[in-house]
Amino acid sequence: MHALLFDGQLRLVGDQPEPTPLPDEAIIRPHLVGICNTDIEITRGYKGFRGVLGHEFVGTVVACADRSWVGRRVVGEINAACGRCVTCRRGDTSHCPARTTLGIRGRGGAMAERFSLPIACLQPVPDTLSDAAAVFAEPLAAALEILDQSHLRPTDRVAVVGDGKLGLLCAQALRLPGCAVAVVGRHPERWDLLHEQGIETIHAGRLAESVVGGPSSVVTDHGPPTTDHGQFDVVVDCTGQPAGLTTARGLVRPRGRLVLKSTFAGESTLDLSLLVVDEIQLIGSRCGPFAPALRLLERGLIATEPLIAGRFALRDGLSAFRAAAGRLKILLEV
Amino acid sequence: MHALLFDGQLRLVGDQPEPTPLPDEAIIRPHLVGICNTDIEITRGYKGFRGVLGHEFVGTVVACADRSWVGRRVVGEINAACGRCVTCRRGDTSHCPARTTLGIRGRGGAMAERFSLPIACLQPVPDTLSDAAAVFAEPLAAALEILDQSHLRPTDRVAVVGDGKLGLLCAQALRLPGCAVAVVGRHPERWDLLHEQGIETIHAGRLAESVVGGPSSVVTDHGPPTTDHGQFDVVVDCTGQPAGLTTARGLVRPRGRLVLKSTFAGESTLDLSLLVVDEIQLIGSRCGPFAPALRLLERGLIATEPLIAGRFALRDGLSAFRAAAGRLKILLEV
Repeated sequence: MHALLFDGQLRLVGDQPEPTPLPDEAIIRPHLVGICNTDIEITRGYKGFRGVLGHEFVGTVVACADRSWVGRRVVGEINAACGRCVTCRRGDTSHCPARTTLGIRGRGGAMAERFSLPIACLQPVPDTLSDAAAVFAEPLAAALEILDQSHLRPTDRVAVVGDGKLGLLCAQALRLPGCAVAVVGRHPERWDLLHEQGIETIHAGRLAESVVGGPSSVVTDHGPPTTDHGQFDVVVDCTGQPAGLTTARGLVRPRGRLVLKSTFAGESTLDLSLLVVDEIQLIGSRCGPFAPALRLLERGLIATEPLIAGRFALRDGLSAFRAAAGRLKILLEV
Repeated sequence: MHALLFDGQLRLVGDQPEPTPLPDEAIIRPHLVGICNTDIEITRGYKGFRGVLGHEFVGTVVACADRSWVGRRVVGEINAACGRCVTCRRGDTSHCPARTTLGIRGRGGAMAERFSLPIACLQPVPDTLSDAAAVFAEPLAAALEILDQSHLRPTDRVAVVGDGKLGLLCAQALRLPGCAVAVVGRHPERWDLLHEQGIETIHAGRLAESVVGGPSSVVTDHGPPTTDHGQFDVVVDCTGQPAGLTTARGLVRPRGRLVLKSTFAGESTLDLSLLVVDEIQLIGSRCGPFAPALRLLERGLIATEPLIAGRFALRDGLSAFRAAAGRLKILLEV
């Protein structure tokens, strides 16, 4: 079968072996697969993954020992856990140390004509939801993980740094509890959907330089403090770049929360003493809950259509990856 | 008057000008002043502070416009806030961007025969509490800040990395809600007071190497995971050293909390992608509430006497600083 894989370089192959499912797994034929920044980072060395890429999908179950699944349209959680270890027994299955992760760790991904995933990961898609909306369940779940990890109050002022795919989803999700949300970005052509939802936008190039160093760094012993240092209660870094973290750090108020949604290859340097002095909470955030993501998509509360930058056939996957860098969501049609 | 100051080098001077108080301030004659790791870091360049050192004190008010304070024995919060800015109005006075901080930022410290501090910072010391216990109010308040910032459950497993002054206070404070607490350290000769309180101890040299990289780093795609990765719900880094943070990172479980109590000169490098993958919360933690610290000291729930490594006269301050590095608490008698 055809598949898009990374084995040191990104390649389209026509002779990928069919997946052989375990008894508690299903074989899925994907309809649409999204290209995520993590996929692009993997092709740059992140995680050292080798294999078929792809973890954002909507598809149909074509084979399964439990026949009741066959023919159902599904999306799926991407972490396949052991279910037996201390982490799984605590309920943190997405952190199981023995887990495989679809298209990211130890498990071939969805950018193929067929792939396998445990039944426990599957979520049926409501009939009223289009494929083009359902394929956003995974990244929207990741955005909702912020609300699952941390108490966001309707009175909180929230900044989302980055107006890429994930940033636009996070801003919409965090707006729903009633928070005042501002997006800091560099792509005004993407902002209409934000303004329609009452989300403020700030051009990153117009942030005062004094903001970027953070609250403490703009205070000196020798003069009055500047007044435009960070005053956001919660700041979410969705830029996927070390510089974005610096910007985010500058926007958060003392005792505020800084949520990291970015994963990228390589180390970051951060003055941790400043985190101590300003008592910032840094919250690493990854995969999230699918059921509420599907509920929000079904209610039409999250705009996804404006996030789609293009569609490519799986066989044009190499072109699709070239088109995806720095763009909004590229979807592969399988 | 005599004072111990840092002006690029640590010096004892005999001609320090008397402090001139503002109307809402008190002049205090200290009895005892503790040497903190922050003082030592300042002499290494941290914060760029120049002036009289010292922020852990117990003393007597000798002059004040409000005469009711004169003659009272006090300890004091170290941050003097403006009281008017948006941060102060939110109640976060210890984060006021215009604040001065006793012996750390913009305000001469307590290692002098007299010094000034706003009345708003003062806390009367109960008669039943000795000077030698009361002088620990400031560092114990810093330990209690962890409980003020974050919900520690009696069922949480807590590790404190570092068996120095602050580590031994944090371990005792975090034990009180009923948590299972383990201290990771390199000084078994200091551990008796921990064992008496049912606090476990682990020699840092005996931690498995595989622990040090953190939960994710001990998992490979090519074999079973090791089982001895971090399983502590909350880990507190009190080492004051970048290497301590790496150890702490290795002990915390996925979705756990990592509290940073250390401030030191220079940047730290941390693989932030690992924080995202394991969804760790990093919590910067600094100064804390004095009133509960005094309550615990008065009830005798925190052992302080074993933390005292020596006493020096203020005039032997240079010897005291030399003795303080790598030791438990050195007190200056003024």
